[in-house]
Amino acid sequence: MGSVAMDSDYGAPRELSALQKARALYQPDLPPCLQGTAVRVEYGDTATAADVAGAHVISQAFPHTYGQPLAHFLSKTANVPDATIITEHPVVRVGIVFSGRQSPGGHNVIWGLYDAIKAHNSNSKFIGFLGGTDGLFAQKTMEITEEALSSYKNQGGYDMLGRTRDQIRTTEQVKAAMATCQALKLDALVIIGGVTSNTDAAQLAETFAELKCPTKVVGVPVTLNGDLRNQFVETTVGFDTICKVNSQLISNVCTDALSAEKYYYFIRLMGRKSSHVALECALQTHPNMVILGEEVSMSKLTIFDITKQICDAVQARAEKDKYHGVVLIPEGLVESIPELYALLQEIHGLHNKGVSVENISSSLSPWASALFEFLPPFIRKQLLLHPESDDSAQLSQIETEKLLAQLVEIEMNKRLKEGTYKGNKFNAICHFFGYQARGALPSKFDCDYAYVLGHVCYHILAAGLNGYMATVTNLKSPVNKWKCGAAPITSMMTVKRWSRGPAASQIGKPAVHMASVDLKGKAYELLRQNSSSFLMEDIYRNPGPLQFEGSGAETKPISLCVEDQDYMGRIKQLQEQPSEHHAKTVPSECWSRVLGLRHILVVCIICLSETTVLIGPLLNICCVLGVFSSRRILEQE
Amino acid sequence: MGSVAMDSDYGAPRELSALQKARALYQPDLPPCLQGTAVRVEYGDTATAADVAGAHVISQAFPHTYGQPLAHFLSKTANVPDATIITEHPVVRVGIVFSGRQSPGGHNVIWGLYDAIKAHNSNSKFIGFLGGTDGLFAQKTMEITEEALSSYKNQGGYDMLGRTRDQIRTTEQVKAAMATCQALKLDALVIIGGVTSNTDAAQLAETFAELKCPTKVVGVPVTLNGDLRNQFVETTVGFDTICKVNSQLISNVCTDALSAEKYYYFIRLMGRKSSHVALECALQTHPNMVILGEEVSMSKLTIFDITKQICDAVQARAEKDKYHGVVLIPEGLVESIPELYALLQEIHGLHNKGVSVENISSSLSPWASALFEFLPPFIRKQLLLHPESDDSAQLSQIETEKLLAQLVEIEMNKRLKEGTYKGNKFNAICHFFGYQARGALPSKFDCDYAYVLGHVCYHILAAGLNGYMATVTNLKSPVNKWKCGAAPITSMMTVKRWSRGPAASQIGKPAVHMASVDLKGKAYELLRQNSSSFLMEDIYRNPGPLQFEGSGAETKPISLCVEDQDYMGRIKQLQEQPSEHHAKTVPSECWSRVLGLRHILVVCIICLSETTVLIGPLLNICCVLGVFSSRRILEQE
Repeated sequence: MGSVAMDSDYGAPRELSALQKARALYQPDLPPCLQGTAVRVEYGDTATAADVAGAHVISQAFPHTYGQPLAHFLSKTANVPDATIITEHPVVRVGIVFSGRQSPGGHNVIWGLYDAIKAHNSNSKFIGFLGGTDGLFAQKTMEITEEALSSYKNQGGYDMLGRTRDQIRTTEQVKAAMATCQALKLDALVIIGGVTSNTDAAQLAETFAELKCPTKVVGVPVTLNGDLRNQFVETTVGFDTICKVNSQLISNVCTDALSAEKYYYFIRLMGRKSSHVALECALQTHPNMVILGEEVSMSKLTIFDITKQICDAVQARAEKDKYHGVVLIPEGLVESIPELYALLQEIHGLHNKGVSVENISSSLSPWASALFEFLPPFIRKQLLLHPESDDSAQLSQIETEKLLAQLVEIEMNKRLKEGTYKGNKFNAICHFFGYQARGALPSKFDCDYAYVLGHVCYHILAAGLNGYMATVTNLKSPVNKWKCGAAPITSMMTVKRWSRGPAASQIGKPAVHMASVDLKGKAYELLRQNSSSFLMEDIYRNPGPLQFEGSGAETKPISLCVEDQDYMGRIKQLQEQPSEHHAKTVPSECWSRVLGLRHILVVCIICLSETTVLIGPLLNICCVLGVFSSRRILEQE
Repeated sequence: MGSVAMDSDYGAPRELSALQKARALYQPDLPPCLQGTAVRVEYGDTATAADVAGAHVISQAFPHTYGQPLAHFLSKTANVPDATIITEHPVVRVGIVFSGRQSPGGHNVIWGLYDAIKAHNSNSKFIGFLGGTDGLFAQKTMEITEEALSSYKNQGGYDMLGRTRDQIRTTEQVKAAMATCQALKLDALVIIGGVTSNTDAAQLAETFAELKCPTKVVGVPVTLNGDLRNQFVETTVGFDTICKVNSQLISNVCTDALSAEKYYYFIRLMGRKSSHVALECALQTHPNMVILGEEVSMSKLTIFDITKQICDAVQARAEKDKYHGVVLIPEGLVESIPELYALLQEIHGLHNKGVSVENISSSLSPWASALFEFLPPFIRKQLLLHPESDDSAQLSQIETEKLLAQLVEIEMNKRLKEGTYKGNKFNAICHFFGYQARGALPSKFDCDYAYVLGHVCYHILAAGLNGYMATVTNLKSPVNKWKCGAAPITSMMTVKRWSRGPAASQIGKPAVHMASVDLKGKAYELLRQNSSSFLMEDIYRNPGPLQFEGSGAETKPISLCVEDQDYMGRIKQLQEQPSEHHAKTVPSECWSRVLGLRHILVVCIICLSETTVLIGPLLNICCVLGVFSSRRILEQE
């Protein structure tokens, strides 16, 4: 790896456009619980992992930071008898670092935290690490000041501080991070990132606790992928903006398709392995097709199955005299297609064994070799790329959309020759939408969410909590209804139990894993209900460019608003109404495979009455509730 | 060519998003001259072609429609003694058709014309042709009604009517168009399009006049390329929106580059042969480099020269520890690079001779073959594509950005090996921004401009003018200062005098040609003044997403606002102030090559005093003035 541009212009004041200036003046609201300088902390029950079967492994791996209580932040006047008001606000020294793919809104976490720090003690010091984690290891810093912040408020990118290697994992890296925290006498280190960075944050917190390093580590859920999602995290900072920018472009392409009526557009969307971005964009824009990785995994569709599905759709549309269309593809699709995933794992295994790129294709097993040779040259070259640090393929570089478009073209030409298809020639144009959305000006929602999360970070460190993630829930309601809290990162962890190839090394290691699209969730249901009319009727919807004023400025992700997600709020409510007996069901069995159980025992957290249920409809809510309580509400039969 | 989707859902009412609905309610203003139902027409002098040397050829090719006067539309109360008020507004039958690449705002031309038609006589009929020119030939129509329009007002795309073949050129096509106009008893046919479509419109007008077909043909300047630009046309409908959408994406990529600091982004921009879109986007976003086709042509840079230029820039930035950057490339660049253009012409010549694609490479001349074999396989395949109907290459399909990125990578690796470059490895990511902008919701400016042009179309037909283009000038001022008029399309024509390969067949044929970026113009000067700081200092500017309310909603193209372009308005002013002696200079000599003159005689159109000037600084303005007057203000010495 080359040297890092440490002497670059990070944090330099810069010229803003008129719109950027107007945005820089926008002041996000705070929910009532964070207003004023006195905030109460209420601690909930011990938070255990949702992954019940993995809890033991997690607790062993994180002896110091597993099993800590949830925290709720309440306004000074909240009528909660056993909540603590933190009245002392000594001078603190806080460091902050960007880790992972830049996501719109990241700067507002810094701003929110800055405002909270200074509001409580103007002598506190707030330090930004320059050049991401590399800057953390090398102690390259700048002081965060009002002046430095001024041209980054409500702005996109991570360019105020920059990002680089995006991991704090090796012993050497962890040591370097600790040396920095000690040298700078940091009371807290805030890490802004997605699933991988927050797993690293949890590990760092554990190591610090073990080695008695007094710095508290706090994670913040910021990733455009929207795949850091669990009982405590409804959505991530940046997801809304990315989906809005992509949806604008997708719907422009839909309009284009409908105007010219001669092209099929295959659009691949950045978003890593899970298909949250593709699902949200599909709900926003109503394309003819969207192929979710989760569906493909579930149905075990091969690349040929998918090709056939698309060809059949093209043919059905041709019968209605339609020769245009738009197909969305998540960038992670390639890893959801079983045979391609297996091929990738074999290639990555050879990489790990030190086989050079030139020799990989000749070292493949016979079946993998046959598949490899079948594929067009451009995709072979991309599949041979080195895997990323988390053992996944370089998804942004693999042009699955081109592969599918090419296979569909071959198949349609074949059908045309055979006479089974009698329409016009199939024409495709391919797009990858990723980098052009990543640096976008954040939406109002992302600005607000990130700013509030920044404030929450301060209250976490003021309460002296270590290894927590800042959380804001009830996000689909207006800001004044938002609920702020903190959850131990370890309680969001699961343990992988199967994997093949080099990824098998992750088996048994607890981590915050990417959340897949819930195929029993309401957002997916909404898509499926409409998919046949999307396919045939061209009811494209154009949400338009991201607006900051007027119509459209206040919208939030459809997949956020359609789900009933305020778990923390609901638990809070239940706790406050102890007379009510509760038996909610959520239609999901997504955990059943993980647990491998047949029945589970459910205990109402209010009245402690017990029920035995078959795995299935009730399981998800049970797991959710299980997390909040040490009263053993979930037990194996 | 396959069949046309005639039975599709053109003009169907559709579901709009909240923002689309809000936009549909937006009512553009009209300039004072078009308000009310009585509009005066004032005729100016005979309009002759700016291409003085070609005027004779043009007048011979267009005996019925060349040399007609300019028309200015004035409000009823305007104090102009010899203007005519058109008081009779009989029932009219008007047809409208989209021709060419869809451009944001096209629908508003239809809406503006509809409102004007109905305001003057509610019994008039307004007919849209379905499926573009193919629909015109086949008499596929729908009646334009308030209801049909309601979900297309201020919306993007051409999907209300659609587009297809995009030409009215062959004898058969012209005949079919005339048969349609006669069968439907059209008083006027309005053609919405760019340079090619307006050339076709002029030809159709001439043919109709010759054959005594009473239908008047009116052209409207609508193209995203911004290359229909001349003395009468300051900008085209759609250019503003395209540049705004692209600039948003480019600046997002700039922010991304600055956040990750590890990639060079090569971005190719749709816009056909000339570089107007690339220039405007560069002024909006301040990328590190932009390579304008016009500069390359002027300096006769080879692909190796350009590669070296970029490599030197990469190296200079590496010395400042910068390993990221953004390079803009117009899609037409490939035709501006002399050796690639010559290769393309040779390939197109072979296509025209009926040589099959497989045999073209072996039929090339030795030098062309050597160049062809040097190029990477992906670009070879793209260069072999059939040329478009105007003999240009399929620019949208040729990935010049990838070619350049690859050549730069090879050269940087070579320098690295030789030790002349000591920085990090060069990494590039390539983009093509085109289709994703074309269907965008039009900006306020494009909505207003298109709507007003639609009204102007009505007044052109009410005045019984044939072969005219609707014009609105003084566009950089607020709508209430806009000036409306009409100019014969023939007066915008020039005659090509040199060309090679199949394009040579265009020599001597008058046409409205694409306008190049004026390398002596103020917009280009602005770019050059800043290019070294753009290159080294990363002063990226983010205009943000296209806004409809609040900050940024009222902005117009920088390249429009920076130029002093209101030629028609200026002439009008001069006419109204006959006591003022006038000698403005415009720094341009772009015509000198065309005319091949050494000196010209300039006559002030006011006082008729004469001056002899060397070609150069004064020539452009002379040509401009020359157009407006039959008083022989421009003469060969």
